Amino acid sequence: MESTLQSTIESIGYNVYLQDSLNELANFVETGNYSKFFILTDEFTSVHCLPLVEEKFAGKTYDLIEINAGEENKNIDFCIGVWKMLIDFGADRRSLLINLGGGVITDLGGFAASTFKRGIDFVNVPTTLLSQVDASVGGKTGIDMDSIKNIIGTFTQPKAVFIDQAFLKTLPPREILSGLAEMLKHGLIVDAAYWEALKNSDLSIPSIELIGQSVVIKNRIVISDPTEKSHRKALNFGHTVGHAVETYSLDNDKDHLTHGEAIAIGMICESWLSVKKTGLSEAEVNDIVKVLTRLYPKYQLPESNFDAMIELMKKDKKNEGNTINCTLLKSIGTYAINQICTEDELRESLKYYASL
Amino acid sequence: MESTLQSTIESIGYNVYLQDSLNELANFVETGNYSKFFILTDEFTSVHCLPLVEEKFAGKTYDLIEINAGEENKNIDFCIGVWKMLIDFGADRRSLLINLGGGVITDLGGFAASTFKRGIDFVNVPTTLLSQVDASVGGKTGIDMDSIKNIIGTFTQPKAVFIDQAFLKTLPPREILSGLAEMLKHGLIVDAAYWEALKNSDLSIPSIELIGQSVVIKNRIVISDPTEKSHRKALNFGHTVGHAVETYSLDNDKDHLTHGEAIAIGMICESWLSVKKTGLSEAEVNDIVKVLTRLYPKYQLPESNFDAMIELMKKDKKNEGNTINCTLLKSIGTYAINQICTEDELRESLKYYASL
Repeated sequence: MESTLQSTIESIGYNVYLQDSLNELANFVETGNYSKFFILTDEFTSVHCLPLVEEKFAGKTYDLIEINAGEENKNIDFCIGVWKMLIDFGADRRSLLINLGGGVITDLGGFAASTFKRGIDFVNVPTTLLSQVDASVGGKTGIDMDSIKNIIGTFTQPKAVFIDQAFLKTLPPREILSGLAEMLKHGLIVDAAYWEALKNSDLSIPSIELIGQSVVIKNRIVISDPTEKSHRKALNFGHTVGHAVETYSLDNDKDHLTHGEAIAIGMICESWLSVKKTGLSEAEVNDIVKVLTRLYPKYQLPESNFDAMIELMKKDKKNEGNTINCTLLKSIGTYAINQICTEDELRESLKYYASL
Repeated sequence: MESTLQSTIESIGYNVYLQDSLNELANFVETGNYSKFFILTDEFTSVHCLPLVEEKFAGKTYDLIEINAGEENKNIDFCIGVWKMLIDFGADRRSLLINLGGGVITDLGGFAASTFKRGIDFVNVPTTLLSQVDASVGGKTGIDMDSIKNIIGTFTQPKAVFIDQAFLKTLPPREILSGLAEMLKHGLIVDAAYWEALKNSDLSIPSIELIGQSVVIKNRIVISDPTEKSHRKALNFGHTVGHAVETYSLDNDKDHLTHGEAIAIGMICESWLSVKKTGLSEAEVNDIVKVLTRLYPKYQLPESNFDAMIELMKKDKKNEGNTINCTLLKSIGTYAINQICTEDELRESLKYYASL
C-alpha cells in the first residue's frame, strides 16, 4: 500500500481532484466553454455544502435544482423533475450540471444529464464519504425502480470529480460508517495492506490519504473493465446479499439501514460463503467479522424474512438466467467473481450472520 | 448515384440487412447468445407485422410488450411501462429487445433498452418507410417531453437492423409519403442524382433499391459524425421549421400532420431561407417547391400562429445559447450547417410557405 497522497487521479477521460478541489472546480467552471450552469443538491447539501461551493463561484450565475434527500427519492419521478427543470431553465447541449451531494445526487444527476438532449456534461462533487470512495469513479449512473436499486441507468463518465474532505465534517457518524464499508471492501478484495491500515486507523473521519487510496483502488479496477464484463465484478463483493438486505430494510424499517450498514452485513455473509466455496480461511473470516461487528451495530434478521431476501437476490441485475451470482474472497486481498450460490447456501449465510 | 442493391450495409458496429431480412433476423436470434427475447410492438404492428416475424421464429419463445401507437405516446409514461414489463418478465443483462414498428417503437424501445440495467442489446425491425430510411441507422434513441421531440434519449447503436419492404404494403399512402420526405431530403443535402431519380420514380411504394440508397446516404453521414458535432447536422435540413410545425400540429390538430408532411413544409421554408442566406438558386427552390407541393397537401398556416411556432423553434435542442440554428442548402446536393436565422427570417419563411 502506498501512503502518499496523489493530488489528482486520472480516470476514464477525466480527473478526480483530491487536493484544493473546490478551487479546481472553480477553475473548471471558469475555463470550460459552457453556456449555462446548473447545481443539483438536496435540502441538506444546499445548507451544509453549497455555501462552500458558492464562495468559490464568485459571481458566476447558475440555476439551483433541489430535490428531497434520501435513497427513496432516487426514482424516476425526481428524475423527471430534474429533466423538466432543465427544460424550463433553458438548458442547452453546452450546459453543465454540477452534482453536489451524496450518491443519490451523483447517481440521479448523472443519469438525468446523460440522457438530457442525448447527453450533456456533468461533474460530481461528492459530499458524503460513501459517494467520495464509491460513486465518484466508475461512470455508473442510475435510479431505482420497483425496489430494485439502479435498475435504470447508463455508463457515462463525468467530466471531472472534486473530492473535498471538508464536507465530511458536516456528516453524522452513521454516514461516515456507511462510506467506510466500501473502503474496507476495497481492502478485502485487492489490498490486504490497506485492510490492515484501515483496521489500525482512527476512522471517525478518515484521512484524505485513506480516501485517496480507496479511489485509486476502485479506479484501477474500473479502468480495466468499464462496463463490468469481468474484473469490475470484484467490486460486487458483499453486494448480492447486501443489496437485498438494504432493499428489505428500505421497504420495511422506519429507520432503515444505510448502504454501508447493509453492505457490512453482506460482507459478513459472503465471507462465510467464501469459506465454504472459495477457500477463505477460518482465521480470515474471524478477522473480518471481528472488525465489522466492532464498527457496525447488529441488525435483527429473523429467519421468517429470509425468503423475502432470497426473492430480492433473485431480482439482482447482476444475475444471468435463474442463478444468483456472488463475488467472493479467496483470501483477504484476492477475489473470485461469478460464484453461483444456491438459495440454501445464501439462506445459511444469513443464518450465520443472525447467529453472531 | 449507384442503383444496384447492397444486401447488407455496415454501420457503426452492426449490419443493416436489406435482403431476406426476416430470415436474417431468425438467424440472429438463433445464433446470438441470449437468455430471453422480448418483442416491442404497437396494436397495429402486432396485427399487420408480427405474424410475418412469428413465422420465422418457429418455436422460439418470447414475451410481447405492446404499447399504444402514435407519436403522442412516445413519452416517459410508456417508457416506464416498458421498463416495468422487462422487470416483471425477468429480463436480465443477456436479454434481447426486438423493436418491431415505426419510429415511435424503435426510438422508445431503443431508449428503454439502452437504460435498462445500464444497457441491454436491442435490434430494430422498422416497419414504416420513415423508420426504415430514417430511424434505422444513426443510433439515436429518445422520447418526447413537454412537447419537445426526443428531448430525453441516448446515442446507442442497435445490434442489427432488418429492413423488409413487405411491411410497407400494409401502410396507408400518407405513411409512405411521411418516409418519402426523408428520402427526398437525403437527395437534397448530398446527392442531386438521387433527388432526380426520386423525382422520376413511381413512389407509391418505393423500391428496395431506392430505400437502400437512402440508408447508404444516411449511414455515410452518421458514420463520419456519430454524435452530431458537425457533418451529421446535414440531416437537420428542414427540421428546425419542420419540428416546430410538427409539434404545433400535434398539440392543435385533431388529425395532425405526419412527421414527413411537417418536414416537407420545413424543407420548403428552409429552401426559401437557403436562397436568402446560402446561395441556393431561384430555379432550384422552384424545383423543390414543385416536387413537394405535388406530393404533399397544403397545410393551413395562419399568420396568427407564427409566434407559437417561433417559440417552439427556440426550444429546439439543436440550438446553442439563444440563437435558432438551421441546416440550409448551398445547392441541391450541397448543405451548409450552423446557419443562425433570426426570428424575422423564420417568420418570413413561414409566410412564403403560406403564400404558395
